[in-house]
Amino acid sequence: MGEHTVASFDEELQSIDRLLCDMGELAASMVDDATRALLSTDAALAQRIISDDAIMDAKQRELDDKAITLIARRQPMAQDLRAVVSAIRMAGDLERIGDLAKNIAKRVGAVGLTSTPTSLSYSIESMAELVHRQVKKVVDLYVAREAEALVPLRVEDEKIDIKYTAIFRELLTYMMEDPRNITSCTHLLFCAKNLERIGDHVTNIAENAYYVMTGKQLPMARPKTDETVMAGANA
Amino acid sequence: MGEHTVASFDEELQSIDRLLCDMGELAASMVDDATRALLSTDAALAQRIISDDAIMDAKQRELDDKAITLIARRQPMAQDLRAVVSAIRMAGDLERIGDLAKNIAKRVGAVGLTSTPTSLSYSIESMAELVHRQVKKVVDLYVAREAEALVPLRVEDEKIDIKYTAIFRELLTYMMEDPRNITSCTHLLFCAKNLERIGDHVTNIAENAYYVMTGKQLPMARPKTDETVMAGANA
Repeated sequence: MGEHTVASFDEELQSIDRLLCDMGELAASMVDDATRALLSTDAALAQRIISDDAIMDAKQRELDDKAITLIARRQPMAQDLRAVVSAIRMAGDLERIGDLAKNIAKRVGAVGLTSTPTSLSYSIESMAELVHRQVKKVVDLYVAREAEALVPLRVEDEKIDIKYTAIFRELLTYMMEDPRNITSCTHLLFCAKNLERIGDHVTNIAENAYYVMTGKQLPMARPKTDETVMAGANA
Repeated sequence: MGEHTVASFDEELQSIDRLLCDMGELAASMVDDATRALLSTDAALAQRIISDDAIMDAKQRELDDKAITLIARRQPMAQDLRAVVSAIRMAGDLERIGDLAKNIAKRVGAVGLTSTPTSLSYSIESMAELVHRQVKKVVDLYVAREAEALVPLRVEDEKIDIKYTAIFRELLTYMMEDPRNITSCTHLLFCAKNLERIGDHVTNIAENAYYVMTGKQLPMARPKTDETVMAGANA
């Protein structure tokens, strides 16, 4: 299979890169769609995201196979090897983003429209927009090979974490106000946590992308904290 | 660095394997400790798990470096390459297990002892025991190269999912009974979800281990469902 074609190493690497970009675009649209499905209780859209996730998984497997075959056949050294290994890692993070978006989509039925207060919908929408922008940006910067522009993505991720903490508190308040909100708010809590985790995967991708381009670690590994776990029983 | 020593390919692969086993043992003890810390509100133990996670991360980086150097220098083909790539993937899952255990440990302060009813503690303990056993088992079976014994791990993971669903419902009940339980129960919900996700990572490891040993996919990819997301607003 494919042994008869003699593509150059660069061509093969580019085809892995294209797959990675496809995965990145799919991941970004899945995040966007999942939030819309959640906030408009759109079951059909939710179903499409679940199908998209199968496409994402297939693309990851294809990328992995290509990358491993490339390593085995071409035996790349140093920088080329780094690029291939990083592509495998970035694909892993993109696949996880797809998985988390799918998990949000699956909760669409469990949350229900009427039970989500407007201010809460707005908070989640605003957090999701930030997350969606981060996913798009990290892929675009990787494609454009703009290493330094990856650095601020970390600061943006802190904004996501702050928004998550605010939503966490808001959800607890709604639950305490009326026990009938508890089930739907619990599902929304997991959705918000999933968005926050998507942000973490963007940071991982930024780290790998930076490493491919520069051979160095992304400056300043900020200590990762989930403020809500520190909030204690008084939150 | 190390370029003067001429170790055989097998020796280098064995040293990667040993690192993987170290990570597996550490992961299992972190899961065990995290649950004990949570259920006994042991802040010192929780702190140790947070330090253990740094050790885990360092071991993963060491394994990754060794594996990539091995691929670059030895240029392994087919089965050997598969073993190295799978080791990288299994290490990734073990690192995630450590991360999830750390996340449980971080919630120790937020949950508090008095607020956890005995029956709930028992349910979480029983789920955690199952998860801990799965982590230990998958590592042991990999070390012993017992491919067929990996197959039943999947069925065991379904038991974990069932326990998770029961705990999810139990937690909702406590929250509805008394709004003062909401904060601590929310943190326990995330802990239970983390245990359930550790189970998923065990399944991933089993799949990779099976693939290394047999070159085939682990039989029957069961559709992964989180029952609670289907439970709807009436759960």
